Amino acid sequence: MAVLVVGSVAFDGIQTPSGKVESVLGGAATYFSLAASFFTDVRVVAVVGDDFTAEDEAVMGRRGIDTSGIERAKGKSFFWVGEYGDNLNEAKTLRTDLNVFEKFNPQIPKDFLKTEYLFLANIDPVLQSSVRRQMKDAQLVGGDTMNYWINSKPKELAETLKGVDILLINDTEARMLGGKSSLPRAAQKILTMGPRVLVIKHGEYGATAFFREAGLHPFRAPALPIEEVVDPTGAGDSFAGGFMGYIASQPELNREVLKRAMFYGGVMGSFAVERFGTQRFHDLSRAEIDARFQLFRELSHLD
Amino acid sequence: MAVLVVGSVAFDGIQTPSGKVESVLGGAATYFSLAASFFTDVRVVAVVGDDFTAEDEAVMGRRGIDTSGIERAKGKSFFWVGEYGDNLNEAKTLRTDLNVFEKFNPQIPKDFLKTEYLFLANIDPVLQSSVRRQMKDAQLVGGDTMNYWINSKPKELAETLKGVDILLINDTEARMLGGKSSLPRAAQKILTMGPRVLVIKHGEYGATAFFREAGLHPFRAPALPIEEVVDPTGAGDSFAGGFMGYIASQPELNREVLKRAMFYGGVMGSFAVERFGTQRFHDLSRAEIDARFQLFRELSHLD
Repeated sequence: MAVLVVGSVAFDGIQTPSGKVESVLGGAATYFSLAASFFTDVRVVAVVGDDFTAEDEAVMGRRGIDTSGIERAKGKSFFWVGEYGDNLNEAKTLRTDLNVFEKFNPQIPKDFLKTEYLFLANIDPVLQSSVRRQMKDAQLVGGDTMNYWINSKPKELAETLKGVDILLINDTEARMLGGKSSLPRAAQKILTMGPRVLVIKHGEYGATAFFREAGLHPFRAPALPIEEVVDPTGAGDSFAGGFMGYIASQPELNREVLKRAMFYGGVMGSFAVERFGTQRFHDLSRAEIDARFQLFRELSHLD
Repeated sequence: MAVLVVGSVAFDGIQTPSGKVESVLGGAATYFSLAASFFTDVRVVAVVGDDFTAEDEAVMGRRGIDTSGIERAKGKSFFWVGEYGDNLNEAKTLRTDLNVFEKFNPQIPKDFLKTEYLFLANIDPVLQSSVRRQMKDAQLVGGDTMNYWINSKPKELAETLKGVDILLINDTEARMLGGKSSLPRAAQKILTMGPRVLVIKHGEYGATAFFREAGLHPFRAPALPIEEVVDPTGAGDSFAGGFMGYIASQPELNREVLKRAMFYGGVMGSFAVERFGTQRFHDLSRAEIDARFQLFRELSHLD
């Protein structure tokens, strides 16, 4: 079944210990949709400016992604400039130009309203809730958020969370949202807010899924020990794309599918960081993905 | 086969968000030997003062640990006082009284010289090397160290590392010893210094084993998501005890044994932190250990 993602399509300027790029295609919805496109049909709803070229669109088009929901607005696309030091887990933001993104008010095209799987990438929770209302028949809703919204719009975010089945956030966000320094306790708290599954992404240490249902143990997926992380930008969104894309490709969501989805999420995150921007996804094959899935299994399984 | 550990037997004063103890039995060799004792015969070489009572010794004795190598010296035992805040990965040391430990010069009793497995717990690398020379027939040598020695005695530590087969250290120590911020790169560097296996302990995120042998993938073991870490003291030493103890209990060291040892290490670390000091080990059973091993498998395995 198909997955619809609503979020940012942007340009990024990125500096890491491995090099520098002035402006490459980026944005949460871009990474998500490219990663998910290896598993299922993907539809994107976003807004871009005049600087978004046919070639940029073709990056998604060549992966079969439906870009007809990308709105063109007068002005420039969302532009972010960030720098990573030796700690590749944290970007220092040097510049954020919201540009056309500032007035983004996502309207889901009629053709997309029946999409079974929905992912609310990290945008203003007010907009996430608006999308959720438009997509009231969605079978499964994944979501993301960030510290900025947790701090500045807690009520609006609480509203959004009521409509999210699976929330994917990182350690810092989980601690802040759950208000606890212990991750399992933060997870317990968050699982009372709406989501029935919480996936906490630990960067180079993998990810843990916590479940609301009583008696269900958490599940931990590894990450690949990567010698040179060229550019960590988009790793979390790529994880979400692999995770949701795999789930959408399966006939039903059971525990085994969710576990595999955690692995595929880690796999797609591990590819994302191998090159600047979304480049690694441009010529990636499903065979490479499955080989890395096997590697993740070898890395973590007994017998 | 038996394992011999050389290191500190001490008393600890510990404050954590869960409570406070003024003085409990602790020390790397104590945690190590208690954890290892569930798998194999354990011999301890250490020094203690007059304050080390028959009851303290009985904590080890009841677990079948051979304490005849614990030297009694005039004065007080090593005493450490530390405090943990919300970040349970890092202790703030409030007091370190080396006491009798200051003149510790480990002499391995004649009966112990043929012990097959040796663990050099975290002490001065000069002493570690001296022990290693005395135990020249040891079949397999595990070791630990810390930032203090990495900084203050790099040459002496380099000498020690030449005689260590498996080094077990944490993330910060690995980055410092390897001189690289990327853990896989730091691991590569460390694996040129002597050890053929490097186990990097990631605290609540588990641990990764890296191998010197070309073409061998790393192996990642999970840690248990624990709601309340009562006292993290000794978790790393307990990991090492479970790890080395399990290896010593097996007829040979192959990759499958090493993978299981990583799991047993995590299991013993997860028990250690459930209560203050070594308490959790006093009435622990092998059945509980094996049940938790199965839980670790469920937490991390597909299918």
